[in-house]
Amino acid sequence: MSGRRGIPRAAGEVVPDRGRRERLGLDEAILCESKTEAQLRHILLDASNREETLLLTRLDEGRADRLGSDFPGALDYESVSRTAYFGHVPAPAGPARVAVVSAGTSDVPVCREAVRTLRYHGSECSEVYDVGVAGVWRLMERVEELGAHDVAIAVAGMDAALPSVLAGLVPAFVVAVPTSTGYGAAEGGRTALNALLTSCAPGLVVVNIDNGYGAACAALRLLRVAARS
Amino acid sequence: MSGRRGIPRAAGEVVPDRGRRERLGLDEAILCESKTEAQLRHILLDASNREETLLLTRLDEGRADRLGSDFPGALDYESVSRTAYFGHVPAPAGPARVAVVSAGTSDVPVCREAVRTLRYHGSECSEVYDVGVAGVWRLMERVEELGAHDVAIAVAGMDAALPSVLAGLVPAFVVAVPTSTGYGAAEGGRTALNALLTSCAPGLVVVNIDNGYGAACAALRLLRVAARS
Amino acid sequence: MSGRRGIPRAAGEVVPDRGRRERLGLDEAILCESKTEAQLRHILLDASNREETLLLTRLDEGRADRLGSDFPGALDYESVSRTAYFGHVPAPAGPARVAVVSAGTSDVPVCREAVRTLRYHGSECSEVYDVGVAGVWRLMERVEELGAHDVAIAVAGMDAALPSVLAGLVPAFVVAVPTSTGYGAAEGGRTALNALLTSCAPGLVVVNIDNGYGAACAALRLLRVAARS
Amino acid sequence: MSGRRGIPRAAGEVVPDRGRRERLGLDEAILCESKTEAQLRHILLDASNREETLLLTRLDEGRADRLGSDFPGALDYESVSRTAYFGHVPAPAGPARVAVVSAGTSDVPVCREAVRTLRYHGSECSEVYDVGVAGVWRLMERVEELGAHDVAIAVAGMDAALPSVLAGLVPAFVVAVPTSTGYGAAEGGRTALNALLTSCAPGLVVVNIDNGYGAACAALRLLRVAARS
Amino acid sequence: MSGRRGIPRAAGEVVPDRGRRERLGLDEAILCESKTEAQLRHILLDASNREETLLLTRLDEGRADRLGSDFPGALDYESVSRTAYFGHVPAPAGPARVAVVSAGTSDVPVCREAVRTLRYHGSECSEVYDVGVAGVWRLMERVEELGAHDVAIAVAGMDAALPSVLAGLVPAFVVAVPTSTGYGAAEGGRTALNALLTSCAPGLVVVNIDNGYGAACAALRLLRVAARS
Amino acid sequence: MSGRRGIPRAAGEVVPDRGRRERLGLDEAILCESKTEAQLRHILLDASNREETLLLTRLDEGRADRLGSDFPGALDYESVSRTAYFGHVPAPAGPARVAVVSAGTSDVPVCREAVRTLRYHGSECSEVYDVGVAGVWRLMERVEELGAHDVAIAVAGMDAALPSVLAGLVPAFVVAVPTSTGYGAAEGGRTALNALLTSCAPGLVVVNIDNGYGAACAALRLLRVAARS
Amino acid sequence: MSGRRGIPRAAGEVVPDRGRRERLGLDEAILCESKTEAQLRHILLDASNREETLLLTRLDEGRADRLGSDFPGALDYESVSRTAYFGHVPAPAGPARVAVVSAGTSDVPVCREAVRTLRYHGSECSEVYDVGVAGVWRLMERVEELGAHDVAIAVAGMDAALPSVLAGLVPAFVVAVPTSTGYGAAEGGRTALNALLTSCAPGLVVVNIDNGYGAACAALRLLRVAARS
Amino acid sequence: MSGRRGIPRAAGEVVPDRGRRERLGLDEAILCESKTEAQLRHILLDASNREETLLLTRLDEGRADRLGSDFPGALDYESVSRTAYFGHVPAPAGPARVAVVSAGTSDVPVCREAVRTLRYHGSECSEVYDVGVAGVWRLMERVEELGAHDVAIAVAGMDAALPSVLAGLVPAFVVAVPTSTGYGAAEGGRTALNALLTSCAPGLVVVNIDNGYGAACAALRLLRVAARS
Repeated sequence: MSGRRGIPRAAGEVVPDRGRRERLGLDEAILCESKTEAQLRHILLDASNREETLLLTRLDEGRADRLGSDFPGALDYESVSRTAYFGHVPAPAGPARVAVVSAGTSDVPVCREAVRTLRYHGSECSEVYDVGVAGVWRLMERVEELGAHDVAIAVAGMDAALPSVLAGLVPAFVVAVPTSTGYGAAEGGRTALNALLTSCAPGLVVVNIDNGYGAACAALRLLRVAARS
Repeated sequence: MSGRRGIPRAAGEVVPDRGRRERLGLDEAILCESKTEAQLRHILLDASNREETLLLTRLDEGRADRLGSDFPGALDYESVSRTAYFGHVPAPAGPARVAVVSAGTSDVPVCREAVRTLRYHGSECSEVYDVGVAGVWRLMERVEELGAHDVAIAVAGMDAALPSVLAGLVPAFVVAVPTSTGYGAAEGGRTALNALLTSCAPGLVVVNIDNGYGAACAALRLLRVAARS
Repeated sequence: MSGRRGIPRAAGEVVPDRGRRERLGLDEAILCESKTEAQLRHILLDASNREETLLLTRLDEGRADRLGSDFPGALDYESVSRTAYFGHVPAPAGPARVAVVSAGTSDVPVCREAVRTLRYHGSECSEVYDVGVAGVWRLMERVEELGAHDVAIAVAGMDAALPSVLAGLVPAFVVAVPTSTGYGAAEGGRTALNALLTSCAPGLVVVNIDNGYGAACAALRLLRVAARS
Repeated sequence: MSGRRGIPRAAGEVVPDRGRRERLGLDEAILCESKTEAQLRHILLDASNREETLLLTRLDEGRADRLGSDFPGALDYESVSRTAYFGHVPAPAGPARVAVVSAGTSDVPVCREAVRTLRYHGSECSEVYDVGVAGVWRLMERVEELGAHDVAIAVAGMDAALPSVLAGLVPAFVVAVPTSTGYGAAEGGRTALNALLTSCAPGLVVVNIDNGYGAACAALRLLRVAARS
Repeated sequence: MSGRRGIPRAAGEVVPDRGRRERLGLDEAILCESKTEAQLRHILLDASNREETLLLTRLDEGRADRLGSDFPGALDYESVSRTAYFGHVPAPAGPARVAVVSAGTSDVPVCREAVRTLRYHGSECSEVYDVGVAGVWRLMERVEELGAHDVAIAVAGMDAALPSVLAGLVPAFVVAVPTSTGYGAAEGGRTALNALLTSCAPGLVVVNIDNGYGAACAALRLLRVAARS
Repeated sequence: MSGRRGIPRAAGEVVPDRGRRERLGLDEAILCESKTEAQLRHILLDASNREETLLLTRLDEGRADRLGSDFPGALDYESVSRTAYFGHVPAPAGPARVAVVSAGTSDVPVCREAVRTLRYHGSECSEVYDVGVAGVWRLMERVEELGAHDVAIAVAGMDAALPSVLAGLVPAFVVAVPTSTGYGAAEGGRTALNALLTSCAPGLVVVNIDNGYGAACAALRLLRVAARS
Repeated sequence: MSGRRGIPRAAGEVVPDRGRRERLGLDEAILCESKTEAQLRHILLDASNREETLLLTRLDEGRADRLGSDFPGALDYESVSRTAYFGHVPAPAGPARVAVVSAGTSDVPVCREAVRTLRYHGSECSEVYDVGVAGVWRLMERVEELGAHDVAIAVAGMDAALPSVLAGLVPAFVVAVPTSTGYGAAEGGRTALNALLTSCAPGLVVVNIDNGYGAACAALRLLRVAARS
Repeated sequence: MSGRRGIPRAAGEVVPDRGRRERLGLDEAILCESKTEAQLRHILLDASNREETLLLTRLDEGRADRLGSDFPGALDYESVSRTAYFGHVPAPAGPARVAVVSAGTSDVPVCREAVRTLRYHGSECSEVYDVGVAGVWRLMERVEELGAHDVAIAVAGMDAALPSVLAGLVPAFVVAVPTSTGYGAAEGGRTALNALLTSCAPGLVVVNIDNGYGAACAALRLLRVAARS
């Protein structure tokens, strides 16, 4: 699929937003699922030439294998979150200021997309899973521990009641992530999304369905604002 | 709007299901909001002639006043629930076996439709209001009290998290009623309805949006089944 | 996918609700379709160590085969309902107090999920299939037989008229399960769900689309309430 | 709102389909609710000048009164159906070949729109109301009577189960009309519409929500086809 | 998947509506896509034992091959319509009284489902394809030919304008079938369905998306009614 | 509602896009229905001070009366379109290059919003109303006349078949405007919108429901582009 | 509507969350639109007795007048935002750390609900209105000024493009509020909501449609977290 | 699948609109995805016999290979756009009057469908990709270049803010194409579509989701109108 003039066709199709980390404190992530493999290969080649690191999201295992072969040793892939780091990403430093919390076992992949995004940007975090409110004692036991964090990323599908209960219990900033877990009236996550938007818990904010990456970016923005104030 | 033969036009338009109490243990209620006043007047006249009692739901205050004037002393109207009893309805006997629980203050009218339906059929109930989960301690304080009932009718709008948390805490049979309280993503109660249908709490059942009457009927069916077993 | 410290990664991702049977009279079921195989294997291993039984739902045949090899003799899989019992589950005792009724042949898998859930919890049931109302005589012939049960789980897709007709004929407690059977305006079961929620039959209650498990849990809650009263 | 040249502004805004009765056996009806009163007055004036009759639908009482004053004696208004005949419309002749059937009392206005449309075109009909399937014996008692008609127009809101049951019992051609009766999950008639479209009853056909006029037109088309064959 | 007592498991899951042809003039068709192959095999075996014929719809090619091997010579499969006749079905007699008309080439499979259903019941029909209104002259050229039929089954996807234009031109009874052809705003046929329901053409009736079978049943009901009148 | 410093509160709430006519050839119109009267008064006062003209859309009659009293002689209001010109707007010059076409009488208000917008910007147009395709001969008679225009603004509600048929007949650029005319499955104009978006007519473009203003702006952009080429 | 024991009926219907300010740093606001006036009066009386302040939202002008008469001098009502302060609320101190930004003039009421909530809790803010992206130079001129704030509450209806563009330009934490401004495809704010949720701008978070109060609560939570770190 | 009389079955299923280029200046394109391969083969054979060229859209790679083998040398397939030219199509002449602009890399396939359609009809165009507004400087740098074109086809998914910003900056005629890029609240392109329809940018017009072909046809219609004026 290379073009007539000997350069990859995908070249003109990608215009990276290079000043973003300076402007916003965040790198642009590469959302892989809607890009062709030729486009992804071009993006990695370009980053490699500039000695830049990249965060790739929604990268399926087959593609990760093929791209990994093209750039040996450069791709650190994690299959649950379907994310990859390209280039050397240092380990996060300092204490965990963000807690990533899930209602159910099925929400873990979205949680781990958030975890990987936070760590890519140098921010450590805690993971607290399977504390949904149908057995509310599981959450109650962890309230004190959760209250020690500045931000809680609360991930829940189906009726998504966890973030509301949590935001009523702890003063941390709560970013809610609805997930597409569930069937029938779950409507692919739409019900969880709407339930979170109509929550009574004051100050709860919401990102797109399954968008662990976006929730992590919100946490990173918040930490940066807090750091400068 | 009377017809050619000197009888009210509405006569042929109503075919009451008279054997229902024998068959199902429940009277047919008259859902007023989609009927004309001529039809309602015909129904009351017919019941009056047969010396039967009636339960009327979704009856607005203006209509209740006008119908009350036509049948002096016969209509016991309650404005919060917008229900009326027609004819003499004895007070309920025995202990409260059903608890009617609301998440918020705005859900009270739907709760009271359930309460009035239960009492019309002779069943006493408890009322526990404004115990939504954004301040979950309000519910926790009442768990023991609620656990003493056979059925809980849990009424909640917006994200409708209350019934899920409740059904995970008490062994009572829980009938959830979503309400149309809320705006925007609440979608007129659709979000509450879907959230309840996708709840993780095992054995939670659901009725239509704002349908306090239906939830009470479910409780009455259950009590009748329990009584015969 | 095991973690750095030599234990399976999935360990921290699952927090079973162990007191549920004592609290609610119901075991927590494992909804398999949104969990990874690593998570399922961890759950079974944990139950095996504790000598507990489990009910698994929405388990496809391939996964059942692979998990069955890992735990020889421990998995009793039934392919129509896509359920499995893990560990020794005694046969149900006593007469059938629940009837599971389907409108069409296509609704049978959902029916059998209910049947398997009931029997897992020790409750026997009757099965009455393909009695939809487009040929209403098929239902009329069975009314007496159905009326002998305390609970009817009525399963129907498309226009889902069966549960309404049934709930108007018998005094049993009727739990309606809409199914995703049908195409076009059936909208994946949404039409059946809405039709059931707006049914005129008094006291009909509804669970999520295709949720045979949930309907069975409702029946079990009811039987437990009836037993203690 | 009259224009510069002394004629009513609405004149150029209406192009009647005058050959329709010859072409299709049906007059064009005037759907009033989305037209201005100036447009309606122009249409009546034009028909009056040409000595033509008209059928007006969805005409509210206030407008009917004002238009009736403009054309004394020419407007035969019926308030339940919100229809009017303009000009002399002869009474229908012959036996009733169409039955108009309703599930509930609230569906009667839609039924009567059908009745008025049929009689406007000279076709007599029977009216059978309030025979919904939550008390299915009410319908069973009328099956023989209904079976004597060539066409049944079956009108139902909420779960709209009546037309399905009916079409499984009688060989008449069944035109189903969903109505906007109901609340919550009734979704303004959308649920009734979808339920009818997914009915198992073979050969059931459907028209728009609350479209009694359209159902009558279908019946008239059928009778005309039957007459020529 | 056979049961414990040596008979096929699927046996109790199917209750054929055997009196349907006498009652309604129509056989019950077997909608195959939501049934298991075990259920289908049981149905064919049962029909074979009773020497009855069957119409099968939505049967994919692989299943047709496997079932055809089980009953050699008994299955007449047509792949465009995905229908099969089981047993000997005589050729239709008499002139074509039904015209099956499509807007586009992509709508042909739905058309042919209608054609096969009509011929199964002994009714001949004409086929007129690809006469959509974006090039309206294609339809105009066929108006006279189409006008010679009693019923037109008009099949169209996307904006589904053809049936409206057609029903304004010919006095035949028009049954419209929306199809799922199209993408984006076509919404899987929902747009075509709604457009047909809101058509201005008087007396147009509609069936479910892609439901060629249902349209044919409506035509057969009509012809039967016309025959007896 | 004026603020503390003696100037109207609304002042800081409005930032007019003053260079728009130079940049785009179009003035910014004032969409009145979501603005407060204080805001509108501020906008008119500001325009009056600058001796600028304004186009106001969706202005109801009561508000037009009150604003007209505040600025005597300055407001040219037209009630069908609910538009007003503020300040002196010269009559359009030259031949009509745009035709505004409606399917039904009920679509005229939207048509006239387009007409008023065109004339405000100096562009004359023709008006051709009530030529919907249920009587397709009405459109056929006007095809030659319509073909003499560069742009056709085709306005239609319900099934919105007119623009598709038109765009297949004439080479003019066709801008389709769906309207909210209709009930039930018309879904407030959503069906018309979707039908237009899925039309087979090549090169048909669409604007928002009832957006006569937007369609006129598209025509004006086109004429400006054509003029410079 | 007072009860049997001489106290207002509404008493048992309200359970205030009194520890909320200590727990979360936020007072519970009183959402008035779904409460009865009896309930509101009870809430104010109770707060008055306890010498507490209250924030009331979505309070229409008529109710504010009547409640103001009951508690003279105690209610500080602002009509654009439809909010009231009950009791003495001190003026906010310190510099503005939050900017409230609107796309259009019609979004100002939602902006002012946020402004009033912030000031109630002692936090000053800047107001920047009518800088939507259809004239993107209006926003570009204000970027430096906006960049000096820690949080931007970006309020926009229709296509809601402003928050995305803004969040790509400034490092502040951006909370987006979709509004119900617009018609047709705006779908009551649903389109703005969805557009914001799918924005490419990293770390953008969203609250419910028209929820200025919730956005302010999120800002207050953030400022509190930043203050303790 | 050939019929009884030895000619391909698909023959009668296709009625090409042969006069379309004369009437409208546009060839009919063949939308391949909903046609059978037999139908496509018939269409190509027919065009080959008449020595006509064809444009095929939505043709997947496997089908293109198989059809290419049947007509060696005749099919010019481009895999990104999934389009093919059949027969000899001359290269476009003249300067680029249309610019095709994308918000993201993922929108390129839709862009290229537009490019291929334009060039098939002899019209050259420019391609400007990945200039979405989350980094608005990328677009600002290209405004002058874009302003030199008569038409801009602006292609964007998710929140689709690009076309609005662009149409506020350049006087070119802007045709917006929403794409199905995105997940969750993107709703398969429905959000992008609605956002474009409610854009504040005056005169923006919209085509169906992913409909690059339709946008190109609109541009071609415009250029033809401009040429004759």
